[in-house]
Amino acid sequence: MPDFDRVWVNAHLCTMGDGLGVLRDGALAARDGRIAWVGPRADLPAHAAPETDCGGAWILPGLIDPHTHLVFGGNRAGEFERRLAGATYEEIAREGGGILSTVRATRAADEAALVAAALPRLDSLLAEGVTTVEVKSGYGLDFETERRMLRAARALGRERAVTVVTSFLGAHAVPPEYRGRQGEYAALAARMIAPLADEGLVDAVDAFMERIAFTPAETEAVFLAARARGLPVKLHADQLSDGGGAALAARLGALSADHLEHASPGGLAAMAAAGVVAVLLPGATYFIREPRHPDVAAMRAAGLRMALATDMNPGSSPARSLLLMLNMGCTLYRLTVEEALLGVTRHAAAALGLADRGVLAPGMRCDLALFRIDAPAELCYWLGGNPCAGRVVAGRDA
Amino acid sequence: MPDFDRVWVNAHLCTMGDGLGVLRDGALAARDGRIAWVGPRADLPAHAAPETDCGGAWILPGLIDPHTHLVFGGNRAGEFERRLAGATYEEIAREGGGILSTVRATRAADEAALVAAALPRLDSLLAEGVTTVEVKSGYGLDFETERRMLRAARALGRERAVTVVTSFLGAHAVPPEYRGRQGEYAALAARMIAPLADEGLVDAVDAFMERIAFTPAETEAVFLAARARGLPVKLHADQLSDGGGAALAARLGALSADHLEHASPGGLAAMAAAGVVAVLLPGATYFIREPRHPDVAAMRAAGLRMALATDMNPGSSPARSLLLMLNMGCTLYRLTVEEALLGVTRHAAAALGLADRGVLAPGMRCDLALFRIDAPAELCYWLGGNPCAGRVVAGRDA
Ligand SMILES: [Zn+2]
Ligand SMILES: [Zn+2]
Repeated sequence: MPDFDRVWVNAHLCTMGDGLGVLRDGALAARDGRIAWVGPRADLPAHAAPETDCGGAWILPGLIDPHTHLVFGGNRAGEFERRLAGATYEEIAREGGGILSTVRATRAADEAALVAAALPRLDSLLAEGVTTVEVKSGYGLDFETERRMLRAARALGRERAVTVVTSFLGAHAVPPEYRGRQGEYAALAARMIAPLADEGLVDAVDAFMERIAFTPAETEAVFLAARARGLPVKLHADQLSDGGGAALAARLGALSADHLEHASPGGLAAMAAAGVVAVLLPGATYFIREPRHPDVAAMRAAGLRMALATDMNPGSSPARSLLLMLNMGCTLYRLTVEEALLGVTRHAAAALGLADRGVLAPGMRCDLALFRIDAPAELCYWLGGNPCAGRVVAGRDA
Repeated sequence: MPDFDRVWVNAHLCTMGDGLGVLRDGALAARDGRIAWVGPRADLPAHAAPETDCGGAWILPGLIDPHTHLVFGGNRAGEFERRLAGATYEEIAREGGGILSTVRATRAADEAALVAAALPRLDSLLAEGVTTVEVKSGYGLDFETERRMLRAARALGRERAVTVVTSFLGAHAVPPEYRGRQGEYAALAARMIAPLADEGLVDAVDAFMERIAFTPAETEAVFLAARARGLPVKLHADQLSDGGGAALAARLGALSADHLEHASPGGLAAMAAAGVVAVLLPGATYFIREPRHPDVAAMRAAGLRMALATDMNPGSSPARSLLLMLNMGCTLYRLTVEEALLGVTRHAAAALGLADRGVLAPGMRCDLALFRIDAPAELCYWLGGNPCAGRVVAGRDA
């Protein structure tokens, strides 16, 4: 008799192992926090573990949000209001708005304040079935504040039943005290990596490569420092212009290149060949009303794996719902339901370099999301509302 | 000493009486389900009623969703999935999709099934602070099913602490059994009004006037039957083409004209002169990817009152969040924060002809929505997440 800890029955499964991998009337068993068995209920071996009756719910791998900036001080609702009332970007900059206002507020917040502000945002994600979330630094832009942001991210992972994956994004913007000395700041950001990694605060290194941010050479210098520490890299690439980000991510073997609204077909093909995941951020496209959308047809043709994320951040995507990103991925980018759901499970795990989740299969972590729906497509179809009926993290109700 | 039943303190108020009507550190008192006093806390008269400490929350009038089709059978997630997978409209029609699939599912559902399906959708709205919701018929297209939908809508108002306002929308589409006899069906819809009103099921009469739906003459015939019964009218107008809906709504003194993506400036000016409210439905614009948006600048110039609604329906706006419509109204239509919030309070009440709500003022119903936010703009700024911390309906916690 198999030695299960717990068994879920009376559920339909999307294993995400082969497309959606729909298994109607399936069953799933856990042992030691991992999936021990999954298959049709009729084939479930006799066992002695307690059974949870899911009442016909659908079970997916716990959802994964692979790109967020959810630790930050303040918010920019006031700036949003001013812009709608007709204020120009120049006026808002003169009033101290924009990303530097978030940098100021983040620098002014201690670790406890950063955690307290981030928790309700994290809880919004968890309520929808998220069990793994990536969190970036990048609003400190000095060593101590970058470190505090990453410590706050780690603290979030202790405060809640969720895996928090951190990315150091020191190369997010040029801080005011380095205005006119961007290269110097990029070199400083590269030097921050080793001591932060020594503290166990860095799972990956990210950079914002863009006309208005860092150059390819500066980005590459940061990434070489990451590689020297054995850390994987990822890239905010080709969001506002084609800066060759997709190709650079491919050349450096990045885990992912994110945004990609302006990436060229050649860059996308290079990413596919190198196994780089495309992380799509429709909330940002929507919120900043970017008319150009990622070239999903080219990504599909290239066989690129596509992930979806909230990009939760106070400036360009104040999105607190991953389910809404499923709808926006479908409605705005014309992803299929299967592509969208792979984008928050299997492909999102790949974007984070996590081989132990995103699919319901024996040996995988038993992170589950349960939904009261009649079909998986409902997760993409509705705008708002939350059908999540439960989360399981490492085999335990969360 | 004033004879209050209950007092709320330690709150900031948006009275919506004059713009947002922000009152920081305000207080509000209720008696017999109505607001008895509202003002700065420092001016609160001595009283003997129990005080609720709101912990710094913001209080708005209970939110009002003035346009929904939230009673229906089935859903169209499968059709959404098929379209994203490349199926044409013709293929979907051949497969039995489109509005007539909702008509079939609604006709097949008994009243209890309609209520059970609608309740979670209604609960999504209520969770965000909605206290009044309009619900339309229009998926029956025969007397018995239209009646059953309206009875289900009334039942929702008994099942939950919410005011449900019903609209009879028999002239929503031509049922299959009347294909080729549209005028005959419109006349039948007009004849349904009196018996449904006799049962107390109809608060207003609505019609879908559009190239693909009913003509101005057919619409007017339905409205004349409404007027003969003393019922107010409203109109789905100028959504897909400029059919003169705005002008017709003005001429007939409708409560509201809804959608208006293609309304002419002349039509909008006529609406303003006649006091007709413009109900904007950004969820539908977004979901069907309508490139043309309502002419908010012309509405503003004409002094038109603008309301915002979910249009919650299975075909063109499966939106279960009124807060998301605040964001879409701002992001897509460029409403100001003040316009958006008036759109789900004061102007939404006007769109339903309700003079007793939508503003925090003495004599108004004590319907309140409490939010944990730092400023009203946050209600429009975030995408997803729910800051609602409580609802009060007719003076009672709901
Ligand atoms: Zn980002
Ligand atoms: Zn409608």
